[in-house]
Amino acid sequence: MSARRQLSLNFFIYPDDHHEAAWRHRSSAANRILDVTYYQELAQRAEAHKFDAVFFADGPALADNVRYAQRFRLEPITLLTAIASATQRVGLIATASTTYTEPYNLARLFASLDHISSGRAGWNIVTTSTPQAAQNFGLPEHPPHHERYERAREYLDVITRLWDSREDDALVNDPISGVFADTGKIHAINHLGKHFRVRGPLNISRTPQGRPVYVQAGSSDDGRAFAARFAEAIFTAHQTLASAQEFYADIKRQARAFDRSPDQIKILPGISPFIASTQIEADRLQDEFNVLIQPEYSLTQLRQMIGLDLSGFDLDGPFPRHLIDTEGASGVASRFKLVMDIVDREKPTIRQLVQRLAGARGHWVIAGPPEKIADNIQTWFENGAADGFNVMPPWLPGGFDIFAEQVVPILRKRGLFRHDYTGTTLRDHYGLRRPASLFSNLVRAIA
Amino acid sequence: MSARRQLSLNFFIYPDDHHEAAWRHRSSAANRILDVTYYQELAQRAEAHKFDAVFFADGPALADNVRYAQRFRLEPITLLTAIASATQRVGLIATASTTYTEPYNLARLFASLDHISSGRAGWNIVTTSTPQAAQNFGLPEHPPHHERYERAREYLDVITRLWDSREDDALVNDPISGVFADTGKIHAINHLGKHFRVRGPLNISRTPQGRPVYVQAGSSDDGRAFAARFAEAIFTAHQTLASAQEFYADIKRQARAFDRSPDQIKILPGISPFIASTQIEADRLQDEFNVLIQPEYSLTQLRQMIGLDLSGFDLDGPFPRHLIDTEGASGVASRFKLVMDIVDREKPTIRQLVQRLAGARGHWVIAGPPEKIADNIQTWFENGAADGFNVMPPWLPGGFDIFAEQVVPILRKRGLFRHDYTGTTLRDHYGLRRPASLFSNLVRAIA
Repeated sequence: MSARRQLSLNFFIYPDDHHEAAWRHRSSAANRILDVTYYQELAQRAEAHKFDAVFFADGPALADNVRYAQRFRLEPITLLTAIASATQRVGLIATASTTYTEPYNLARLFASLDHISSGRAGWNIVTTSTPQAAQNFGLPEHPPHHERYERAREYLDVITRLWDSREDDALVNDPISGVFADTGKIHAINHLGKHFRVRGPLNISRTPQGRPVYVQAGSSDDGRAFAARFAEAIFTAHQTLASAQEFYADIKRQARAFDRSPDQIKILPGISPFIASTQIEADRLQDEFNVLIQPEYSLTQLRQMIGLDLSGFDLDGPFPRHLIDTEGASGVASRFKLVMDIVDREKPTIRQLVQRLAGARGHWVIAGPPEKIADNIQTWFENGAADGFNVMPPWLPGGFDIFAEQVVPILRKRGLFRHDYTGTTLRDHYGLRRPASLFSNLVRAIA
Repeated sequence: MSARRQLSLNFFIYPDDHHEAAWRHRSSAANRILDVTYYQELAQRAEAHKFDAVFFADGPALADNVRYAQRFRLEPITLLTAIASATQRVGLIATASTTYTEPYNLARLFASLDHISSGRAGWNIVTTSTPQAAQNFGLPEHPPHHERYERAREYLDVITRLWDSREDDALVNDPISGVFADTGKIHAINHLGKHFRVRGPLNISRTPQGRPVYVQAGSSDDGRAFAARFAEAIFTAHQTLASAQEFYADIKRQARAFDRSPDQIKILPGISPFIASTQIEADRLQDEFNVLIQPEYSLTQLRQMIGLDLSGFDLDGPFPRHLIDTEGASGVASRFKLVMDIVDREKPTIRQLVQRLAGARGHWVIAGPPEKIADNIQTWFENGAADGFNVMPPWLPGGFDIFAEQVVPILRKRGLFRHDYTGTTLRDHYGLRRPASLFSNLVRAIA
């Protein structure tokens, strides 16, 4: 048995596909995007290949550009609950917003998912970057980035203590004495902060994992600091090894400053692979998808990333770099820098840029034969850029199958990825400790 | 085939049992209250016996009296999603609060449940009567009854239009033209009211049932008016045939005033039966549970219903009727009148009163052989008191099995209950129409 450090692999399921035009491709399953059995089958494939987790993005608003692309989705916590019933081991990570959900409600939903799945729940913590969401929740405007993160930090404090509010051994269940629970082990949290006032305790028992795994994906300064403090797994987008290495080193360094062990934070960049037996065929495959891109749609996607509408511009003209205010990015903070890096490095036309981004909304797109994909994964993994990857197939279901059947066996042969699960919970798969209740620590410290 | 009017039967699953002391009884499954397979099995039994639906209560707070009774629970929407995966036909009704949940979030959760279950979702609309909830959601105090209902009415307007915001045929999914959706059939709702500002549209497609079934349980004047306007199924508590008849007639009359067809509102009183082969054995069975009652707990339950703490009083003394202010009930409105009716009719001691209420929190408790239970059900059903029943077994799982195996066959033999399902959705089971989208009506009306 090798004690070698192991890759973590998530399957990021995007309804329906990561490549923005894949729903138009003959291989697409776009007609099944609201069919729960489709997602149950995808998760079963991930489990058959021993992936750590399946992951779903989310946002509480309908995107504006629904004419040109599939933007409807099932709510991810319910969807993952349905997947929990159809799988036994694979982790289940749902995105939910600290800006637009009450902490008491969210604590209950994730605690239920963790109970129902016997300890496989993960929460991808987002502050929501879609400004349209504010209008669905009665806010005059979408709160600015810094304020959203301030609220998120307080939110984490509240929800963590809610999950800890009933100690693991609070249940007595003694029919003779008539005592059902030891109320000394059930704690009000009495939170009184700037954004929240929450008394608690939660009305559900402590969950198999203690708390769901905390996942995060921010890449701004606020996002990195937040991740270093709270996150146990980080999904991140990088186009180059150097960019990923810088991020990796920065997060692990910041984590140490919070007295956290760096090995308790798994950094998982996205990878969207076009795989074929030769490089030429892989490139051709990628082209098949890129010709289906609709510029009207791509430009709305780009506008969300950089805060600038290029609809009037010549697609084959140069990207108008001078119009971008580098300081005051009004787009998605985690993507703005990434796009500008591509622009500055490659000097693309607008069409080239949107094609570059169409693959996976700014994530690393790579085309080639299986060995090349495996080599790149190994290089990032062994050179301080990644603890694993968030696999984002350009199309589904076939794009996942090719990766799982052709790349995963190579990684396994090299001793980099598990042959079977060694634990039952998502914390087990990631190698994360189960946290003790903060309240039981408190009691111990006082005693 | 008989075209006779048919009973609706729901199985109200209360974790763990409806009799407040049943968790202390040897037949109880109190050790499985957080085990999802327990609920999946119970729902499978309901389905095997062709029940219309399973139903779960809910509240976003932990009750104060957890020392003496099981008050922890899984969140019901996730729980029913897990049950959806383990069943094919039975309806799935979850309680959720209009006071403590954002309409956009709740619309998504129930729409997902309706998709995942292929059209079996029902929403039990509550305004939440537990004052502790306010403290979990940052409110200075629990909003008063009338204000909660005002908010609930606006909430229904918002959530109905969210569920209708994407017309049934909005999906185009045409890879050749590149048109995914017909944006002319996807509508912002632009709601601007006193309590909510919600733009929409919802980011999920219209559900199999159009909307989940609207269920309601209020019995106050506000509650009745709300139910008559919005509810498609009503759960209600009555101790006597006369009380149930008055309620039934009042609701159907009020519904006509809203231009609604009375047969589109199913009125389902609760019934909690102790069943044995003779009356003496059934009474003895009920006594077995009543001796397990803990007065400390019962008095907190009573306090919640009538707003008065009787802890200092002699349990075997008379109920202090003179201390009750009939006008200003601060307890649960739907229970206050019911308790006072018992007090005025039966002049019980405090102990007799709490035993009377221990069976099912004020619902109709009846003990006797199967024929007697069936006779009573038939009498209520055929004399303008009920369209069916919400079956609340005193203990689980055995209390349900006895009803299903001994009473249901009698009802079936009398032609009062289905031998098999004739449809697939909860609307089918209840005989409710699938509503058209309000927006498609609007378009038609204008055209």
